[in-house]
Amino acid sequence: MMTAPASRPLYRPDELARTFSPRSIAVVGVSTNPAAFGSITYANIAGPGRFAGPVYMVNAKYERIGEQRCYPSIAALPETPDCVFIAVPRDAVEGIVTECAERGVGGVVLFSSGFGETGQPERVAQQQRLVAIARRANMRLVGPNCVGFMNYGLGVVGTFGTASFKGAPRPGAIGLVSQSGAVGAALAQAQEHGTALSHMLTCGNASDIDVADQVAYLAADPACKAVACVFEGMSDPARFLTAAALCHEAGKPLVVHKLGTSERGAQAAVSHTGSVAGSQAAYRAAFEQAGVIMVDELEALLDTCTFFAKAPPPQARGVAVAAVSGGACIMLADKAELHGVELPHPTPATMAVLERLIPEYGAPGNPCDMTAQVLSTPKDLHDCFEALMADPQYGALVVPHTFAYAPATARIETLGKAAAEHGKIACNVWMTQHLEGPGAIESEQNPHVATFRSMNHCMAALGAWHKRSDWLREHARAEGRVAPAQARERAAALLAASPNATLTEREGKEVLAAYGVPVVRDVLTQSADEAAAAARELGFPVVLKVESPDIPHKTEAGVIRLGVKTEEEVRKAFDEVMRNAQAVSPPARISGVLVQPMVPQGTEIMVGARVDPQFGPMVVVGLGGIFVELLKDTSVRLAPVGPREARRMLGELKAQRALQGFRGTEPVDLERLAEAIARISELAADQREHIAELDVNPLICAGTRIIAVDALIAKQKA
Amino acid sequence: MMTAPASRPLYRPDELARTFSPRSIAVVGVSTNPAAFGSITYANIAGPGRFAGPVYMVNAKYERIGEQRCYPSIAALPETPDCVFIAVPRDAVEGIVTECAERGVGGVVLFSSGFGETGQPERVAQQQRLVAIARRANMRLVGPNCVGFMNYGLGVVGTFGTASFKGAPRPGAIGLVSQSGAVGAALAQAQEHGTALSHMLTCGNASDIDVADQVAYLAADPACKAVACVFEGMSDPARFLTAAALCHEAGKPLVVHKLGTSERGAQAAVSHTGSVAGSQAAYRAAFEQAGVIMVDELEALLDTCTFFAKAPPPQARGVAVAAVSGGACIMLADKAELHGVELPHPTPATMAVLERLIPEYGAPGNPCDMTAQVLSTPKDLHDCFEALMADPQYGALVVPHTFAYAPATARIETLGKAAAEHGKIACNVWMTQHLEGPGAIESEQNPHVATFRSMNHCMAALGAWHKRSDWLREHARAEGRVAPAQARERAAALLAASPNATLTEREGKEVLAAYGVPVVRDVLTQSADEAAAAARELGFPVVLKVESPDIPHKTEAGVIRLGVKTEEEVRKAFDEVMRNAQAVSPPARISGVLVQPMVPQGTEIMVGARVDPQFGPMVVVGLGGIFVELLKDTSVRLAPVGPREARRMLGELKAQRALQGFRGTEPVDLERLAEAIARISELAADQREHIAELDVNPLICAGTRIIAVDALIAKQKA
Repeated sequence: MMTAPASRPLYRPDELARTFSPRSIAVVGVSTNPAAFGSITYANIAGPGRFAGPVYMVNAKYERIGEQRCYPSIAALPETPDCVFIAVPRDAVEGIVTECAERGVGGVVLFSSGFGETGQPERVAQQQRLVAIARRANMRLVGPNCVGFMNYGLGVVGTFGTASFKGAPRPGAIGLVSQSGAVGAALAQAQEHGTALSHMLTCGNASDIDVADQVAYLAADPACKAVACVFEGMSDPARFLTAAALCHEAGKPLVVHKLGTSERGAQAAVSHTGSVAGSQAAYRAAFEQAGVIMVDELEALLDTCTFFAKAPPPQARGVAVAAVSGGACIMLADKAELHGVELPHPTPATMAVLERLIPEYGAPGNPCDMTAQVLSTPKDLHDCFEALMADPQYGALVVPHTFAYAPATARIETLGKAAAEHGKIACNVWMTQHLEGPGAIESEQNPHVATFRSMNHCMAALGAWHKRSDWLREHARAEGRVAPAQARERAAALLAASPNATLTEREGKEVLAAYGVPVVRDVLTQSADEAAAAARELGFPVVLKVESPDIPHKTEAGVIRLGVKTEEEVRKAFDEVMRNAQAVSPPARISGVLVQPMVPQGTEIMVGARVDPQFGPMVVVGLGGIFVELLKDTSVRLAPVGPREARRMLGELKAQRALQGFRGTEPVDLERLAEAIARISELAADQREHIAELDVNPLICAGTRIIAVDALIAKQKA
Repeated sequence: MMTAPASRPLYRPDELARTFSPRSIAVVGVSTNPAAFGSITYANIAGPGRFAGPVYMVNAKYERIGEQRCYPSIAALPETPDCVFIAVPRDAVEGIVTECAERGVGGVVLFSSGFGETGQPERVAQQQRLVAIARRANMRLVGPNCVGFMNYGLGVVGTFGTASFKGAPRPGAIGLVSQSGAVGAALAQAQEHGTALSHMLTCGNASDIDVADQVAYLAADPACKAVACVFEGMSDPARFLTAAALCHEAGKPLVVHKLGTSERGAQAAVSHTGSVAGSQAAYRAAFEQAGVIMVDELEALLDTCTFFAKAPPPQARGVAVAAVSGGACIMLADKAELHGVELPHPTPATMAVLERLIPEYGAPGNPCDMTAQVLSTPKDLHDCFEALMADPQYGALVVPHTFAYAPATARIETLGKAAAEHGKIACNVWMTQHLEGPGAIESEQNPHVATFRSMNHCMAALGAWHKRSDWLREHARAEGRVAPAQARERAAALLAASPNATLTEREGKEVLAAYGVPVVRDVLTQSADEAAAAARELGFPVVLKVESPDIPHKTEAGVIRLGVKTEEEVRKAFDEVMRNAQAVSPPARISGVLVQPMVPQGTEIMVGARVDPQFGPMVVVGLGGIFVELLKDTSVRLAPVGPREARRMLGELKAQRALQGFRGTEPVDLERLAEAIARISELAADQREHIAELDVNPLICAGTRIIAVDALIAKQKA
């Protein structure tokens, strides 16, 4: 069966609040050994400057630990804690969880490993029992096999790591969700370098709460302004898309880095968490359509998310670059081109200011080489920034910095002021990733200055910013359905009527025609005479093809003849293709020979669809033949798509220039083609219960003439 | 004129030694203002723990500055300084340079701006005068408009920046050359984070010494073990390639980042230094052939160079990955696939050790998820590292680290020991670029552990390591010439004999044939009768093409007919193509109509050549038609190439699978095709004075049948 399993709904924010925003906490497994996980967790939560509410120690072995009272059990606590961190050996976990459930705890966090991730049946069962106990009591469960979570605003540093959480947490705006605990912990160290996190949530084995629940929680938590998420895979991506929609409704950008993009990586993902990695193309398509911002490097995740948290909507398409180094100007121009970021020339008014300020050995313009001389004159520097920020062509100003020491601090302040005044964003790029001086923290903390440690990541983020702005605008305009009203019923009836697992070409084309996709005419013939008569009627040249549900690949089987020009040739071709069809092994059922008019040359497009086990129906578009088969030059979306989205798919093809006419072929009417793609995507979506795979290959396109000359439809297995 | 200008030879090391390895130094322009460029430079060089030799202050205004004697002039110094840093206003520079030349100084470093880079004729002339004065006296000149240089081994911090050079320099093995001063200064800050530099050299306007001279100098300096270079462009890249060859001879890897890859970036490059950016493809080709390692991101430059300085030659193709986080395993597998790095499964012996050590919730294998439990048991961790390093399938072990604090230090030591024992390299990847704790410096300083701040850069470096190892092996086997002995003279005579600026197809094919490139037969005909007779003799089907030096693009002009099957059709086609040829405007000279046998279908290859203004003759290969024209899927090399190199070019094509046969076409004999490419490249190289551009399009290939069916040769303008 090919459709996605039924979804458990996302937890509502109020169902997760006691866990992630607790008013009282207990830690089970604290001991007199300060290096024990329980002891470290207690210290992390209850230490100076941390959580202000009550934090209880639980361990039956002690009455006191240090100066604090230690309780023998959850039952013995003076109040019911909202959240309980459990740091005990695996086999003791179930008893504690049961105790928590009985007491009415809001949520438990399980650090212990050795449950479902081992893949051993009894351990998987043990984990399932924990979930059952928790759910019966309406208690949430984080983990097992997780590193916990942080709520920086409340001072809850709920984890057993000692290393990276020094000093009082500085609450910020970025909510981080990491499926991998180690990756989350590594990223959380950004706190010490200025990146201001509101939360860091992990879910370990995700036996109850998963990444999607946590993203949805952050969508609702007012402390979080933008969400960063890193994950490997998920068994039910639809829930994640719902969480993404909640972020969108809350006006919070969602930036993700998906691991397991390679075949090898995907294998590692399966062995790691038992989650299904899912096809990368499907994830990319789904995120594209949901307005989720994707980054290709983990290193770009937090800088990009912080940028989106700080950046207002772009006022203009253009971006300005100002540097004191010609080399930096060139590098930023290189990366701008790579990510399609426009660097328009300044207006004459702006140029006049720049020319007055910049010495002759600099280069006013965009990129603007201000020279070190401007740098050493705060007034001139301010005036340069001000002129560029005031220019209506620019929505953002990018300034690379060579040093992060004292002078940078003043410069960043100047930059931030200019940005604030015009309601724009400034980007400060450290020219090497070694820049971690005081200027770095200053820059991170300035609400109008986004910080990047890589020119590439900066320009990628600016490209994504414009793309998302387009998405936000387009998203508001819903796209209507384009297929005829009766298409769904008519196609379902045709599919049901065919006895074949794979439809014949003629049957396939009838289904397409029901959705209003133009298909080539044909006549089914049983003899050379009939074929010749049909050809005469259709007009030469014609195409002959054997009609059989058992020969889906006609060229390879030699059962197709193109460009047949005379009656005599038709008779000869009829005999040949029939002979070849009869030679197929195992013997194929043959309904006859289709005679079709030969469609004049045009650009050949392939439109396909398949039902992804995780995402459901997907539509794929590419140029036919070698482009799809050798170069994998395709665009993918979750089906259905409207004509506008289909138009965007065409714009993603590397070979898109071929659609504008190439070597004498007529340019393709893109609106017509997009409409055909939309119709095919509606077919795939409507008939997901019936159609497993579908290929329209080729769709021959020239001008407004768009015509499907072959169709292959494989039915879902019953 | 299309050939490169005559080269100035590179300076020999002994000609640069007094400048970059001075025994005595003077700084002109030191003053009582400690913030003056001269004062800062003096402090940087003469400060505690810095240069041990004499450092003289020069300024006519003072007799003493602080406790030091100040001299009124260069002439007044008690000895002739090897190197003089000149920090005076622009118009005073020429006088000081003259003084230095007269005194016999070894080299001068000019910080001042406002010379050649302004583009103003009188400033350009001023700069040329400085060079003339220096060269007459056999004195070197660094700059003007430069930030100076550092020789860390000698403690010469010869620059006017205050910010980034704190503490005693820690001499290291990496020599850095940066055309951009600001970029070099930014990168030099890596010293504070463990990267150990031997030199940082900049050249400003490169009026005398340029990037190539500096790279050649580092090739000879024993303190430097590997060279990192960042540059924008150069007027004479042949000199740089010579410097690269010197690095190769000295056994020093050369890692470069070239700025100005985009059209916009290249424009910025031109406006910045007056240097010509050159075509990016030409640079890439030249570096590929010279064994130069290229990095696409500035951020990767120093980490990659340090890796190459530390890494022994790879003992095996495979790489092992071991982590305590499943997430990190997946990310590294993703990046390995991206860069073609192989992660083979461990041998059974290795697996046995790993299975014993790693708990059930981990994943022995490759990538190997060791789990945090192994991490907390130093003996087990050691044994894991040891088992993977001992496995003969692996030449390197990659270990990502989440934290850079104390425990990492011990782990890095363990890792380094295991690497040292087996003569292999370990790579430590900080999982976020925020990791700058003590472990970071520990890692950088371990001679067996290369440090990366990005998984992507790490896997890119490992991919480049194997590629370079192949190059080193291949480079030793010289490739012989494949064209016939008399080809050069015969082709030159043919080219001279043609009166046409663009050769006709027939003339072009004769030139190709002289080099042993198989070309299609043809007969030149003057009438429909002659054409019909020729076709009869050649055998049907045939091709008719108008032969004219004025119609290079035959398809577009309608002067070609393919697949002509009968005498009657030949006569008709003759008249048609002649009519079309006669309609061309302006009127074309017509020599007749070529009749050729129709070459059976095959894969169409385009081989082209052109003379690059900077690099000289280049050869380009791609699949014909849409692949080259729409997808720019080509491979480029400096000509000539041998068949082995041509074979590698084919391996670089994205569409290379098409060469193995596609939809019924016969696989191409790659050796034969490579030989044809080599011959064409020899033609382009031999005849560079005569041929500006050359297109063999298409070369029709099927099995061992490789045949050029069209040729376009444009001569150099006299």
